Amino acid sequence: MSTLFVCITCRPPGDGELHPRPGARLYAALKEQAADLDVVSVECLSNCTRSCSAAVTAPGKWTYVVGHLDPDQHVDDILQFARQHRAHADGLPAWRERPAHVRKNTIARVPPMPAIKE
Amino acid sequence: MSTLFVCITCRPPGDGELHPRPGARLYAALKEQAADLDVVSVECLSNCTRSCSAAVTAPGKWTYVVGHLDPDQHVDDILQFARQHRAHADGLPAWRERPAHVRKNTIARVPPMPAIKE
Repeated sequence: MSTLFVCITCRPPGDGELHPRPGARLYAALKEQAADLDVVSVECLSNCTRSCSAAVTAPGKWTYVVGHLDPDQHVDDILQFARQHRAHADGLPAWRERPAHVRKNTIARVPPMPAIKE
Repeated sequence: MSTLFVCITCRPPGDGELHPRPGARLYAALKEQAADLDVVSVECLSNCTRSCSAAVTAPGKWTYVVGHLDPDQHVDDILQFARQHRAHADGLPAWRERPAHVRKNTIARVPPMPAIKE
C-alpha cells in the first residue's frame, strides 16, 4: 500500500483566499477516488510556491513530491502515478510511462531509508 | 541517527561540465565532517533546477529536501540542520533556529510514514 500525502492548505500563488482551498479540494477528490491508496491530509509540504502539492511514498520505496497540481485537471494524473508507484517494487515507475504532468512537475525524490546497520 | 542523502551529480544550472561536480564536492565535504551522521551519496534527487541538493531523513521523522547548496558556502548550514533534525524527536527543528539558507531553500518536506494499520 502506497501512501499519498496531500497538502490541504495549498493554494497556487496569487489565488487569494479561495474557500475551500484548492489543496482541500484535491484531497477530497483523491480520498473519494482512491480507496486502494492510503490518502492522508497534511497541513504543509513546504512546496508552497509550487503548489498544489502531493507526495507518494511507501516503506522501502522512493518518495516522490509532485507540484503544480490543479484539482480540476490533475486528479487522474496523480492517481495514475501513485498506482504506478505502488505497483513497482522500488517505487520507481518507468519515466516514459508516468503521466506528463508528473514528468514535468516532479519537485524532488528521496531514496528509501538505508538498511539499518547491525 | 539521521541520514543525509547528497546528490553527487548535481551542478547548478549554467555551470557547465565542472569536474568534480559541485554535488560530488559537497558529498565529500559532508562525508568527512559528519561522522555522527549517515551521509549517503545519491545519483539524483530530481531537484536538478534547484541544485545542489540534499535530503535529511530518519525512521519515524519528517524528511526535508534542501536546495541551492553551494559546496563552498553551505556545508556548515546543512550539517547544522541535519544535527538539529537528529536531535528533534519528530525531525521538526524550530523554524527560527534553522540556518538561514535552510529556511530560505527548503524545497519540500514529507511526513513520516503513517503507523501501519492492523
